Amino acid sequence: MEFKISDKMRNMKPSIIREILKQMSDPTLISFAGGNPAADSFPAEDIARFSDELLRQDPVAALQYSVSEGVPSVREAVRAFANRRERVAKENDGVLITSGSQQILDFAAKCLCNEGDVVAVENPAFLGAFNAFRSSGARLAGVPMEDDGVNLAALEAVFAAPEKPRFFYCIPNFQNPTGKTMSLAKRRAVYALAVRYGVPVLEDDPYGELRIAGEPVPSIKSMDTEGAVIYAGSFSKILCPGMRLAYCVCDKKLMAAFVVAKQCSDVHTNVWAQRVCEAMLTRTDMDAHIREIRKIYAAKAALMMEQLDEKCPQVRYTRPEGGMFIWGTLPEGADMPAFVRECLARKLALVPGNAFMVDEEAPCGSFRMNFSTPTPENIVKGVSVMAGVLAAQGL
Amino acid sequence: MEFKISDKMRNMKPSIIREILKQMSDPTLISFAGGNPAADSFPAEDIARFSDELLRQDPVAALQYSVSEGVPSVREAVRAFANRRERVAKENDGVLITSGSQQILDFAAKCLCNEGDVVAVENPAFLGAFNAFRSSGARLAGVPMEDDGVNLAALEAVFAAPEKPRFFYCIPNFQNPTGKTMSLAKRRAVYALAVRYGVPVLEDDPYGELRIAGEPVPSIKSMDTEGAVIYAGSFSKILCPGMRLAYCVCDKKLMAAFVVAKQCSDVHTNVWAQRVCEAMLTRTDMDAHIREIRKIYAAKAALMMEQLDEKCPQVRYTRPEGGMFIWGTLPEGADMPAFVRECLARKLALVPGNAFMVDEEAPCGSFRMNFSTPTPENIVKGVSVMAGVLAAQGL
Repeated sequence: MEFKISDKMRNMKPSIIREILKQMSDPTLISFAGGNPAADSFPAEDIARFSDELLRQDPVAALQYSVSEGVPSVREAVRAFANRRERVAKENDGVLITSGSQQILDFAAKCLCNEGDVVAVENPAFLGAFNAFRSSGARLAGVPMEDDGVNLAALEAVFAAPEKPRFFYCIPNFQNPTGKTMSLAKRRAVYALAVRYGVPVLEDDPYGELRIAGEPVPSIKSMDTEGAVIYAGSFSKILCPGMRLAYCVCDKKLMAAFVVAKQCSDVHTNVWAQRVCEAMLTRTDMDAHIREIRKIYAAKAALMMEQLDEKCPQVRYTRPEGGMFIWGTLPEGADMPAFVRECLARKLALVPGNAFMVDEEAPCGSFRMNFSTPTPENIVKGVSVMAGVLAAQGL
Repeated sequence: MEFKISDKMRNMKPSIIREILKQMSDPTLISFAGGNPAADSFPAEDIARFSDELLRQDPVAALQYSVSEGVPSVREAVRAFANRRERVAKENDGVLITSGSQQILDFAAKCLCNEGDVVAVENPAFLGAFNAFRSSGARLAGVPMEDDGVNLAALEAVFAAPEKPRFFYCIPNFQNPTGKTMSLAKRRAVYALAVRYGVPVLEDDPYGELRIAGEPVPSIKSMDTEGAVIYAGSFSKILCPGMRLAYCVCDKKLMAAFVVAKQCSDVHTNVWAQRVCEAMLTRTDMDAHIREIRKIYAAKAALMMEQLDEKCPQVRYTRPEGGMFIWGTLPEGADMPAFVRECLARKLALVPGNAFMVDEEAPCGSFRMNFSTPTPENIVKGVSVMAGVLAAQGL
């Protein structure tokens, strides 16, 4: 039978990164292309202990159907966690437990966009977000990134355009792919523009806990007195991604639509994972655990930057204050796709920067490096591969 | 901030059943309204044992990101399970592991429907399916149910209409809510119509393993030589629902779109749950386990029917050959909503039949009873409540 695929899905391509991940079974390939958390950061023993306890003492509480919003006691624990340093979840906000934060991006587009509507996005940004929005039929308006966040004039122009965007998507902390952090001044300005133009902000914060340098900057959600910010937090980087656990904080009126979307999508999030997460949040010292993850990431990031400085001085790059990514840029006039191709031929995977651009066809001299997944040994080897390719290409 | 909800989500209501489930914290309420598997059917000890083994021996295999299609070894185990009695997954079919089978319904609508497109559905049918399709902007064309499945003439009329439906949704085994089973002759006829008119069939089979009487009838998917059937199987009723595990079998060309939808929706299904499921399928006698579940359900169904025969002879009802539901119909002229309301006032929850109709406003004299969730004691008490209400209402 010939299937007629819907307009919104017909031209969607599989994520280049998910496709690259499929190649990862080749053990000789070094990958700077993924975005996996370091496996040695997983609190596997605690998870095993709590899971065992739960499944032996109260299996039905882990294995039966539950409510779409998330198990009430889990939501309470998550609210307390999200609010432990700053007020993320306000009185008028609900907390929804989701199957990864990708699901929050999906719900935002599904609940706020009709086919053809515009969504404003940082450009470049997380391509999984672009795909989620496009899969609801949205069109993307890219707002250029500067070192301290989006260009405000360009953002205001997009907000003020006749086709007002349905929301603005950004990753203020250690952005994917650029590793950049939005300054406090820009966060305030973005929030003010959102309120002035009536455009909600979708603040995606999967990496916020992974700060390795500098001082924390308040979230945009913490400034939110008007219920204008949808906050997406994740446990994938501070517990583990395989459990698919994230949470959304937003105004209760909007959350009512998200809850219906959740019912239509996967009914509710895996209850076992929710309960184990609750135990982690309430019975372990999460901040001590997060400090350990930060140490692992700080060491890996420092090693990659040291190697780049030493072996690839012609590559300009961001010095991220956290997260998982370094954004490299080749010298003016270099052929970035050829560089990435040749690295892959020599068994080093990088992601070409245009994969993260709203217009993938536009010229782009940058590429993304991930430092959380590779071993220290492979970080050293991988940067050497880059140096070899740069030399061979006369860069 | 005022949020402008998308057209497709604006008029969606929370599922009445999910709302009823929220009330279930009242311990004095007897519920015939849910659809929860019997908790004593969960293989909790095996799950605990495999989970413990996995998390201690190879935690990264359970906790790291994985591919969107599902862990390859899990997909193999699921394919073998699906094919153990009849050929569900053919050579040209892919297997996708999903976060519950609700997600398959969501993907089918997302990948095959533009806003405003028509989906043909059994009427009445599972309201979670209606909600999933509507949340993609689809309009529903209901096809009346008879005792042995849909009315074929009405189905052909819908297929032949100028606005050809994008697919036809049905639950051939122990349908929700009616408990009816589609006959072999009708399955063949439905498949022939699907091929003749080029309308794919979405065969939802969450209850197929839960046969308590009669002989198995081949699935529509087993007849599928043209790649015209999308099969949705679930582990919620034979393992447990809290893990959110289901699988989709369909033609690889269509599955490519489903995989992209999966990437956009929740990236991949909980890996821990997938691995535990694999262990259950490959290292335990699933058929022996399923026989035990059937015994529980057969006893509960028999008790409910016996009680209905004895105390409520004026209620006509289906005698289901499996599944979880009995569809009751009041005597001609009775006020069904008043009956359901009065039962609830006396602490017995039933679902009014119109909740499962494409047009909820149309007159309906039926209601749904679930026998899997209540205890035997509560089955007896609940039917007595019904008898009391019938008497009080002069029915």
